[in-house]
Amino acid sequence: MSDADVVVVGAGVAGLVAARELTARGRQVLVLEARDRVGGRTLNAAVPGATVELGGQWVGPGQDRVLALLGELGLGTFPTYDSGRHLIEFGGRVHRRRDTVPRLGPLALADVATTWRALGRAVRRVDVEAPWHSPDAAALDAQTFATWLHRHSRTRGGRRFFHSITRAVFAAEPGELSALWAQFYFASAGGPGAVVSTTGGAQQERIDGGSQRLAERLAAPLGERVVLGTPVRRIAVDDGGVTVHPRTGVAVRARRVIVAVPPALIGGVDFDPPLPPGRQALLQRLPHGAVVKANVVYDEPFWRRQGLSGQAASEDRTVSMVFDNSPAGGTPGVLVCFVEGHAATAFGALGPARRRARVLDDLAAYFGPAARRSTGYVDHDWTADPWSRGCYGAFGAPGALTRYGPVLRTPTARVHWAGAETAVRWVGYLDGAVESGQRAAGEVEAALSGSAPSPATDLVSGLNQP
Amino acid sequence: MSDADVVVVGAGVAGLVAARELTARGRQVLVLEARDRVGGRTLNAAVPGATVELGGQWVGPGQDRVLALLGELGLGTFPTYDSGRHLIEFGGRVHRRRDTVPRLGPLALADVATTWRALGRAVRRVDVEAPWHSPDAAALDAQTFATWLHRHSRTRGGRRFFHSITRAVFAAEPGELSALWAQFYFASAGGPGAVVSTTGGAQQERIDGGSQRLAERLAAPLGERVVLGTPVRRIAVDDGGVTVHPRTGVAVRARRVIVAVPPALIGGVDFDPPLPPGRQALLQRLPHGAVVKANVVYDEPFWRRQGLSGQAASEDRTVSMVFDNSPAGGTPGVLVCFVEGHAATAFGALGPARRRARVLDDLAAYFGPAARRSTGYVDHDWTADPWSRGCYGAFGAPGALTRYGPVLRTPTARVHWAGAETAVRWVGYLDGAVESGQRAAGEVEAALSGSAPSPATDLVSGLNQP
Repeated sequence: MSDADVVVVGAGVAGLVAARELTARGRQVLVLEARDRVGGRTLNAAVPGATVELGGQWVGPGQDRVLALLGELGLGTFPTYDSGRHLIEFGGRVHRRRDTVPRLGPLALADVATTWRALGRAVRRVDVEAPWHSPDAAALDAQTFATWLHRHSRTRGGRRFFHSITRAVFAAEPGELSALWAQFYFASAGGPGAVVSTTGGAQQERIDGGSQRLAERLAAPLGERVVLGTPVRRIAVDDGGVTVHPRTGVAVRARRVIVAVPPALIGGVDFDPPLPPGRQALLQRLPHGAVVKANVVYDEPFWRRQGLSGQAASEDRTVSMVFDNSPAGGTPGVLVCFVEGHAATAFGALGPARRRARVLDDLAAYFGPAARRSTGYVDHDWTADPWSRGCYGAFGAPGALTRYGPVLRTPTARVHWAGAETAVRWVGYLDGAVESGQRAAGEVEAALSGSAPSPATDLVSGLNQP
Repeated sequence: MSDADVVVVGAGVAGLVAARELTARGRQVLVLEARDRVGGRTLNAAVPGATVELGGQWVGPGQDRVLALLGELGLGTFPTYDSGRHLIEFGGRVHRRRDTVPRLGPLALADVATTWRALGRAVRRVDVEAPWHSPDAAALDAQTFATWLHRHSRTRGGRRFFHSITRAVFAAEPGELSALWAQFYFASAGGPGAVVSTTGGAQQERIDGGSQRLAERLAAPLGERVVLGTPVRRIAVDDGGVTVHPRTGVAVRARRVIVAVPPALIGGVDFDPPLPPGRQALLQRLPHGAVVKANVVYDEPFWRRQGLSGQAASEDRTVSMVFDNSPAGGTPGVLVCFVEGHAATAFGALGPARRRARVLDDLAAYFGPAARRSTGYVDHDWTADPWSRGCYGAFGAPGALTRYGPVLRTPTARVHWAGAETAVRWVGYLDGAVESGQRAAGEVEAALSGSAPSPATDLVSGLNQP
């Protein structure tokens, strides 16, 4: 007696993709979502005249899975505005730059170029399917990315530049990340250039109507099979199936479960039997980044007339990164602002009015006094969101990948794992979320159709032996 | 209408000390414990002729709080057997040594001495009350202890020696720990010498009848105020007090709550309102070590007749550390064996029979064939214990202390924090657990008696500003 073949925990992109795939194969699926909405770490907000994104928002070349899915769902994309000069603050002064590298002296510039090439070489050596088998994996995973950067970049300017990039990419400090995880992340995207680029890279395209529409379109055909406001409390596996208990309401019985929530939330679910020690240890070593994202609205994108792209960055300001986030038509003008890493937690605690004032101060410092004449403001503190507990996503603390990485995707009995952190390509991105949902659905379908043995446990086979 | 003035979550040493202190001041206290026993990470086991310890077991000079408490409770101590030669395996051969340093060449020995002195100097500079304010705190917390060791120790032998020590002290790999956390840990104990020493150090004394008796003696006068088998599911704070909901059974109403469980377990409790982002982030950055502990029983301590202390260590074996754990009278003979860090998770998964065989193999390699003639075996896999999720305790991943350390002990509204990881002196030890329980009780008593303002939140005031 089952209520469903498969219960999916989490109606973010990963979970909804898994549900879509399994439904297409004729499986009865039920998606349980803690929030009162779908979309997970994607979130649209209406501002006067536009819909803007408060969560993950961009797609780009090489992200074939999400691009194909958008096509199937009838969702178009349009290019991120990327014309004109960028404003890069460095050493206390804002410079107009053709590229996103700050104005540095010749030594620091040469250092940036050398370190960038070294990073590219290191990233090419990463085995994205099994980063723990990469050359030097043990040594790289026993050091932070800050240590790696300081060994390769020898100038103060170069180091500060790479610290800024790290904060922008991971919403975390270089001193928190495993060097191996950082390089794995770049490698899974095809290289650091793809990660940091707008045109030609991960920030190239936006989704018509905002990125949350991806999840909404995925959820629509599932109808009442997506149950909102239903946090899962307990997952009990037995010989005959699995029982998923929400915090309140009736337990659901299924044959398999796919857990598609960020790592830090998995600790809030009681598993019976308990998760294997290797997975417990892994979950203790995947902290989340910290970011608050704000959108500021203007009557028009005044910066474009000044020959500016709307992109800005600083290593000193609360708002460390800005992009033009105006709708495809260009009106109203919208600037999307990021407060990341070290700065995010304290900033989030300020309260909406003071956050808005701080953001406008920083925008005025970048773009001049016109930036104060905003007509709308909206932000989201992902560090305070109880169903995210930090964004953009989780990263590997030192030692996590080499000691416990092999269990990242390995199913426990009847329990399968999805989510952008479990991807091989574009880990942490929308594309990685799609991949993970497809992969988990494939595992479950194989198990249900009898074409794959049920894995007994991820512990003995999956772990690296000492 | 309150069931108690204070609910304490967790009947380990920290929680029971807090309960004892508050009860002594006339407060009504209720202790809710998930396990069916008290003692947390201390655990006695009966073997033929003796009681042995499967968890934390030693006390030593300088641990004034726990020594005083043992005295008050009428519990005596006796010295850990520490006479004779130690067996140290290094480079594939077991050597009989007067000290616990392996047989190394002169270069490596000089390196060990130099690095040891450098570690001592670094440790003396740590501000144990606020390690994030120590000199070089930011740089130390942005690197792993492996990185620090490799910068200071220049020989292969020296590095391997310090890796072995780290594994023994933290049940974790040097590449997982923040260098600042490692040095804070040593500093909180008064220096690395105190941590690694038997006579004169943290392993000097054992507790009559086994260390779990400390918790049992603390719990006895509390009687039915200690409720076993009652995991806490939810802690809801309102203007009038706090409601603590167990997984099953009736919710308890109190004025304050003290949470005295290891960091990785806190994520399994729902807090309403949610814990502040800074604390969430901290909890994501305090992974637990990994250890399996075994006691092997013999008719007599045969090694003593051979001039051996029963202490053994190896950097290559599954059993990386052994101590004589015989009772005070010396009969039966007991060897206590540690499987730590990298090796523990896979070892724990082997199952009891294979674990025993592996341990006996290693003991025979250290002590000769007599070690195979055991009369009893008992072990405990702390990585698989759902109410510990790793031992000896939690450690700071890189970035944890400098970014989020200030909230480690700071109460959230009506919620106070205890546990060995929150101590200033002897963090991670029984003595630290006692200190933390006393400190939390003091906070609560001050709040209840109106002599201290209720802290609104730990977020704004506590966090380091960027």
